[in-house]
Amino acid sequence: MTIRATVWGENVHETTSQIVSDIYPEGMHTQIAKQLAVDKNIVARTATLQQPEHGLTKEVLAETDVLLWWGHAAHGEVADEIVERVTNRIWQGMGLIVLHSGHFSKIFKRLMGTPCALKWREAGERERIFVVNPGHAIAAGLPEYFELENEEMYGEPFSVPEPMETVFISWFQGGEVFRSGLTYKRGRGNIFYFQPGHETYPTYYDDNIGLVLRNAVRWAHNPQAVSSDPSDAPNVPVEEALEAIEERGPKLHKKGEKGLR
Amino acid sequence: MTIRATVWGENVHETTSQIVSDIYPEGMHTQIAKQLAVDKNIVARTATLQQPEHGLTKEVLAETDVLLWWGHAAHGEVADEIVERVTNRIWQGMGLIVLHSGHFSKIFKRLMGTPCALKWREAGERERIFVVNPGHAIAAGLPEYFELENEEMYGEPFSVPEPMETVFISWFQGGEVFRSGLTYKRGRGNIFYFQPGHETYPTYYDDNIGLVLRNAVRWAHNPQAVSSDPSDAPNVPVEEALEAIEERGPKLHKKGEKGLR
Amino acid sequence: MTIRATVWGENVHETTSQIVSDIYPEGMHTQIAKQLAVDKNIVARTATLQQPEHGLTKEVLAETDVLLWWGHAAHGEVADEIVERVTNRIWQGMGLIVLHSGHFSKIFKRLMGTPCALKWREAGERERIFVVNPGHAIAAGLPEYFELENEEMYGEPFSVPEPMETVFISWFQGGEVFRSGLTYKRGRGNIFYFQPGHETYPTYYDDNIGLVLRNAVRWAHNPQAVSSDPSDAPNVPVEEALEAIEERGPKLHKKGEKGLR
Amino acid sequence: MTIRATVWGENVHETTSQIVSDIYPEGMHTQIAKQLAVDKNIVARTATLQQPEHGLTKEVLAETDVLLWWGHAAHGEVADEIVERVTNRIWQGMGLIVLHSGHFSKIFKRLMGTPCALKWREAGERERIFVVNPGHAIAAGLPEYFELENEEMYGEPFSVPEPMETVFISWFQGGEVFRSGLTYKRGRGNIFYFQPGHETYPTYYDDNIGLVLRNAVRWAHNPQAVSSDPSDAPNVPVEEALEAIEERGPKLHKKGEKGLR
Repeated sequence: MTIRATVWGENVHETTSQIVSDIYPEGMHTQIAKQLAVDKNIVARTATLQQPEHGLTKEVLAETDVLLWWGHAAHGEVADEIVERVTNRIWQGMGLIVLHSGHFSKIFKRLMGTPCALKWREAGERERIFVVNPGHAIAAGLPEYFELENEEMYGEPFSVPEPMETVFISWFQGGEVFRSGLTYKRGRGNIFYFQPGHETYPTYYDDNIGLVLRNAVRWAHNPQAVSSDPSDAPNVPVEEALEAIEERGPKLHKKGEKGLR
Repeated sequence: MTIRATVWGENVHETTSQIVSDIYPEGMHTQIAKQLAVDKNIVARTATLQQPEHGLTKEVLAETDVLLWWGHAAHGEVADEIVERVTNRIWQGMGLIVLHSGHFSKIFKRLMGTPCALKWREAGERERIFVVNPGHAIAAGLPEYFELENEEMYGEPFSVPEPMETVFISWFQGGEVFRSGLTYKRGRGNIFYFQPGHETYPTYYDDNIGLVLRNAVRWAHNPQAVSSDPSDAPNVPVEEALEAIEERGPKLHKKGEKGLR
Repeated sequence: MTIRATVWGENVHETTSQIVSDIYPEGMHTQIAKQLAVDKNIVARTATLQQPEHGLTKEVLAETDVLLWWGHAAHGEVADEIVERVTNRIWQGMGLIVLHSGHFSKIFKRLMGTPCALKWREAGERERIFVVNPGHAIAAGLPEYFELENEEMYGEPFSVPEPMETVFISWFQGGEVFRSGLTYKRGRGNIFYFQPGHETYPTYYDDNIGLVLRNAVRWAHNPQAVSSDPSDAPNVPVEEALEAIEERGPKLHKKGEKGLR
Repeated sequence: MTIRATVWGENVHETTSQIVSDIYPEGMHTQIAKQLAVDKNIVARTATLQQPEHGLTKEVLAETDVLLWWGHAAHGEVADEIVERVTNRIWQGMGLIVLHSGHFSKIFKRLMGTPCALKWREAGERERIFVVNPGHAIAAGLPEYFELENEEMYGEPFSVPEPMETVFISWFQGGEVFRSGLTYKRGRGNIFYFQPGHETYPTYYDDNIGLVLRNAVRWAHNPQAVSSDPSDAPNVPVEEALEAIEERGPKLHKKGEKGLR
């Protein structure tokens, strides 16, 4: 079955920083999409902040099984309306993979309900990513650990909810640790946060990183996605109760009235 | 140690529905506060929607260990600014107990990151609340189950995240089930959702309900609450790294620059 | 990809109770295997208590992706050695689906580390099974709820660990509730407990039950199963440390010595 | 309220290794008990492998609120009968704190249902323990991290079930990481695994370690411990059903008959 992925890139530093554009001349989103396309069963398109509706129209989301999100400098420029649209689609079953500095994106904070804060240091230090859950689908084919010679340090405490599963934990040369791969579920949507990916390093060219991204897309894909309203809260009338009951006691609602919100 | 509870009541149906004002002439919040005061170690005050800042000023929240929330008709009238203030305080360690129709309150949806929808029927049917986690502090002193002869049916699926622990599950006469007691943690804040409490029934006069509320306040109280900013994401300068490292590679941030948000 | 399932049946009441043999003349295990075979990608074999090594030889387990377990009268007759063998294979990644009275099987108690006790009543009452996690793979294709007109009541508290996810909760006519579908993970092995299936009722002929079983087999199948020893605890010699370190301080172990167990 | 702790020490290396007896002349268990006694509300006794019934008689366990377990060389010498007795008492609500090499103790493996394996290296390297859950009661009063200049490296993957909460993660000088503080619940018993404590280093003299141990004892103490049989699975007779039902269908059990196990 083909999985339809959309890679959302903020695409700001690629056009404002020579360092970043040298590494990712076509944009980080394009390189991430290329990594996904290594799997012939994944079809990856891209969308960026600068496009109308940030490239995330209802049509695009309706045709997206898994959304990947990379943002850093312009979290505040993402329109609240689009964040709500994406949120709703995740609740319907679209998967979400949040990358690196996306920990502070509106969409991730919206879904976690926590600050999503952490410590950081940009020093090009060594990061060693350990698989702590070797049977997890996102770790398929990986060695016991792999290294990135230059990455930004993200350090604990990472103020997110306790995850469904911890897949990766990272060791940093400068002395910190970080839960670098965490899974969540919100509504029908599978969510994976993955820490590496600072824009001044060639992280998204790394083979192991590519493997994690492809694994994560397959894991996050939920064939049971629906298009109905996830916030619907239907009344079950007395006469349609599953067991016969008689109405008793005082009532607030008139017959057939909608519930309060 | 004295625990400082604040019972927030929407206080709308108490003044607009004769049924509700007959049952709760002083307001539901007042009756809930009376239940808490049975424990001499809990000091309970109240706050309502109609007060300035909904009664939830910075001062009140700073002096609140656990907030209880009952709302139904006027979720939309709660100011977003107050919701963010309460959210921030929960992240700092204030406990939150969300009651009944509060499942659709802004604050609960904000913290869960899900629709928090369910099925419902107002027919005064019997609800039987089972303790499924008898060793949990919130179930202390309860029998194996207890009944409310008249309650509003809330039915699954309840679209919330998988809880930290399921404490209660309810059986309804009309044929449904509901996870009626669920725990969560967001930042340092302990959160408990408790389903009973429809305003047209005398639920908050029930002894077992009172016991659950007092247990929940004690459970939710976190002595490790702090007043610092939970969203702070400090940079760790290279020269203060825990292990000596040399700065390497290209950099986005100038020395001492704040992180992007 | 073909999934190799093995249905283990205790096969005692089928030969000692006329009621049971009338319903399941070929044994419950055979009927369960027939339900699985509706999916052309599942190949199901059976094994029973009475066979040598209870039909669970090393060879059979090595060729099993998912094991289903139905037992009731003869839990104590299952050899401890076989239980350890199955446990080890689950840790390597074989899935396990525990059915009904299997809650008290040695293998389930071994993996849960809890009593796995519950309340029960054999009265042929109505059970209504609610999907509380509609986006879960095990619930694919099911309606919001389905009914079994005659089932044995299993009631809370069910003394199992808090699950990874709660998929089903059941309503019983006699007034109880039960978490009837729960997921766990032990090592690389996915585990699903599913409550219906009393031997005096034709539960395993029910279409919805069949669908759940097939879904559960697909969900439990872990393509990352391995054949290595899951209890291996390797020493990492100083000279092979990931970062160069010097040995310091007193030592208990001589160089190359095995760890203590 | 006074909490009654029992510190169980294997007490083998203290009598066979000069290194260990030099550091812990009265035994590790005695030093751990001294750390607990710093809190005047904790009364700590000790028990050792060599005592009759390993010092864990029914009377001792009945008077123990929280059991601490340190073992390494002689896991296999702990009698299975005692392991089952301790297990049963934990299910009833006694807390358990498993220390360091206790990861391979019979009691921990019994409760986890997994191999509990890990990587290790005895090189006296630096360990830095990070608080990843700063609002947790076990982290009360700790700094953001603390260091042990010499510890045994324990490395991931640690084959335990996904924890209820991850409290600590450790960084090791030689390049590994480890989830060094994990919480679980089995029956009514709260369980905490804490990684530091190799016998050739003076870890249990460290002030931060002492603070963690005292916090953990207070956290693990469950005032709702009971003395009833946690494996009891009572029949609910039809005539005592919570809702009136009529018995239907064929039956396996005669009236009043005990359930099968």
